[in-house]
Amino acid sequence: MQQIGIAIAGFGTVGQGVYKHLLQNRALLQQRLGIRFAVHGIAVRNLRRKRLVKVPRALLTRDWKSLVEDPRVSIVVELFGGCNEARRLILAALRKGKSVVTANKALLAEHGEEIFEVTARYRAKIYFEASVAGGVPIIKALREGLIVNRFQMIYGILNGTCNYILSKMSRDGTSFAKALAAAQRDGYAEANPALDIDGIDAGHKVAILASLSNGFLMPFSKVHIEGIRSITPLDIRFARLLGYEIKLLGIIRAENGIEARVHPVLIPRSHILAAVDGVYNAIVVRGDVVGDAMFYGRGAGADATASAVIADISEAGLDRLYSTEMRPLLGPRGRGAAKIKSIDDVVSRYYLRLSVVDRPGVLAGIASVLARAHIGISSVIQPEGHEGKVVPLILMIHDAKYRDMRRALQQIVKLPTIRGRPMLVRVESFDVAPFDGGQDLRPGGDVS
Amino acid sequence: MQQIGIAIAGFGTVGQGVYKHLLQNRALLQQRLGIRFAVHGIAVRNLRRKRLVKVPRALLTRDWKSLVEDPRVSIVVELFGGCNEARRLILAALRKGKSVVTANKALLAEHGEEIFEVTARYRAKIYFEASVAGGVPIIKALREGLIVNRFQMIYGILNGTCNYILSKMSRDGTSFAKALAAAQRDGYAEANPALDIDGIDAGHKVAILASLSNGFLMPFSKVHIEGIRSITPLDIRFARLLGYEIKLLGIIRAENGIEARVHPVLIPRSHILAAVDGVYNAIVVRGDVVGDAMFYGRGAGADATASAVIADISEAGLDRLYSTEMRPLLGPRGRGAAKIKSIDDVVSRYYLRLSVVDRPGVLAGIASVLARAHIGISSVIQPEGHEGKVVPLILMIHDAKYRDMRRALQQIVKLPTIRGRPMLVRVESFDVAPFDGGQDLRPGGDVS
Repeated sequence: MQQIGIAIAGFGTVGQGVYKHLLQNRALLQQRLGIRFAVHGIAVRNLRRKRLVKVPRALLTRDWKSLVEDPRVSIVVELFGGCNEARRLILAALRKGKSVVTANKALLAEHGEEIFEVTARYRAKIYFEASVAGGVPIIKALREGLIVNRFQMIYGILNGTCNYILSKMSRDGTSFAKALAAAQRDGYAEANPALDIDGIDAGHKVAILASLSNGFLMPFSKVHIEGIRSITPLDIRFARLLGYEIKLLGIIRAENGIEARVHPVLIPRSHILAAVDGVYNAIVVRGDVVGDAMFYGRGAGADATASAVIADISEAGLDRLYSTEMRPLLGPRGRGAAKIKSIDDVVSRYYLRLSVVDRPGVLAGIASVLARAHIGISSVIQPEGHEGKVVPLILMIHDAKYRDMRRALQQIVKLPTIRGRPMLVRVESFDVAPFDGGQDLRPGGDVS
Repeated sequence: MQQIGIAIAGFGTVGQGVYKHLLQNRALLQQRLGIRFAVHGIAVRNLRRKRLVKVPRALLTRDWKSLVEDPRVSIVVELFGGCNEARRLILAALRKGKSVVTANKALLAEHGEEIFEVTARYRAKIYFEASVAGGVPIIKALREGLIVNRFQMIYGILNGTCNYILSKMSRDGTSFAKALAAAQRDGYAEANPALDIDGIDAGHKVAILASLSNGFLMPFSKVHIEGIRSITPLDIRFARLLGYEIKLLGIIRAENGIEARVHPVLIPRSHILAAVDGVYNAIVVRGDVVGDAMFYGRGAGADATASAVIADISEAGLDRLYSTEMRPLLGPRGRGAAKIKSIDDVVSRYYLRLSVVDRPGVLAGIASVLARAHIGISSVIQPEGHEGKVVPLILMIHDAKYRDMRRALQQIVKLPTIRGRPMLVRVESFDVAPFDGGQDLRPGGDVS
């Protein structure tokens, strides 16, 4: 049996999960792979910290450099998180020709160019299945299982914390603040939740998926990001009334350039993503050959993430055993070959909630601003109120470029009847496959 | 650029799809793989048959043996279907040391032992991603992406034709016969639909998934199979009234032995599989590390299946390029190591619809038979009728072994008030992850 040495850098939730499951399912892994993995060291920041997983004291070290230098170590598993020490560690390991496994989406999204460049230069290998959607093998699916596809669209729920909060708001009618507090109490949101609720974490994942699927490095700064702080129970109620749920989605779309965006979306309640509740992640992939496929599972947590990290360790082990070359990381096109579309040029439908003073002519004023911008209204909900009172007014708006919508909105908020901030949420139906979908299935097929 | 020769045997719907997309996305594939595939021949039964995809006449041959002998051909793609010629072709190719790609689930389920034995003996390789769930890379997910997991449960919608029919019955309230006729008219069911509607096709897939996930060859004859012919609109209506949908599911469960079964199931409408409509397939995998993951997509059709076949061709190409060994086909255990559980020992809840003569004491008679068998009733629906008329009576029954349930039913149908055949459908909730699911996600995790 071939033995391959690994080192783990970072021993938080995920690091402990990886170590635990590597040990617990060791026999299974050996029989499935023909490889025995030996952990030669674990780099930690604090040697004395109490941990849930028992580990021989001799394995722990505060000196990650010694692990990278250790000639017995072929695979370095980076689970520090963050972009400083993690970056130095990964670059050092790659330069030594080691294989690197990482779950660090922030690092890949923000320093991908440097990391991929060093990987190629030293003919090293890097694996990052766990960086997107936790235990769901979405990166393997894109790069291997769906290899013959051009990816027309990839979209989905990429952040479990936001989905937990929005699910709770939808189910219980609670406010954003209360749902966030519940998420924090139950351990589904960090004390500082900004990375999640402001959409940055999902944005990192979108940058990675956009790069993999379109064959060039998508700069994180080009991903359009909006979070969920301003969603109110009122918006969720109106959305449901109109047949929608509100979800925070990451969307990558290739059509006259590449769209890469993260923002709340009204999706039809009949769409399968509307059924994804709680901390689960789900990603829909639309390929020109396969059609629509969806991948669903736990997007976070020690165990689910460990499943992906250990799959990468296994892959790295086999690749070393057979001296395979890494598949090209960024698909068919060279860097910068595709045009990135500005959010201003992205066309979508919109849900617009305004607070207006209830008096005759309110709607006429708004409608005429939109008409001048050639923006169509598809429906209006104006709850009955008392004249002179401030009431919500909901407009569903036809396909329009964001630039036009944004400019029209700048004029609308100046109307004398408008109070407070408007709420604008994109509406996407993603051309839901109809019930009778699957138009390429014909009688007499060999396979059913 | 490395060139690898392939031959395609069978040029029906899927064969044409494979050829078309290999050509259409050739540049993409070359850039992603570093391999150029050359098709050296296509074996057909009828040289003159009209086909949708144009192909040089010189590539077509009725003599598949010449293709297997052709030294330029390294990869043989078997798309004949059926178990006779396909079996001979595959065995001949394996004995020549060629790599075989096949979508033939019937052959693998019914002749897997012989085929895997010859594969191992000749150190050849066989790939069969397209044999289960069309374009969805479920086999790669099980064997690679989720490699560290013990598979506690794999279940899902494995036959698009049945799901189309049941979805249509549920949506429109039509009879089975009418829904089947519609499926045939729309090209979603064969003229002879038995393979699909009697659950045999799903049974083949269950045998393959059970073998891969449990490390021994599951004989097809040990898969318990019931089809959907006897489901009525009445059953679907009552199921919905009780909060369920009826789906034909394949289920593999490892708990004190391996369960492998295909039958209609009442699943809660809140379960994500209940949202899978039409010809789509969806498979839930429960692993001891990853938790629940789901894979969804087109389960059939030329294009989706071609996506999986070409992924296998790519894999086969890389494996030849790097001379890798095939991962063990059947996981960790040797053949026959696990106990296969008889359907009689499978415990589940049940939906039971009886036709009874509406008169006092009917329910008491049925209830006392069940009580003597220690089988509990959880609820009863008895529509109001006229005394003496035949009416449906629905019982929801607590967990019971099928043996006990079956025997009780034999006594119940002998009661003087029972008319016609009883309808018994298993009820499964698969311990649906609660809204607050994902118990391993804790604050301070490295990944979210």
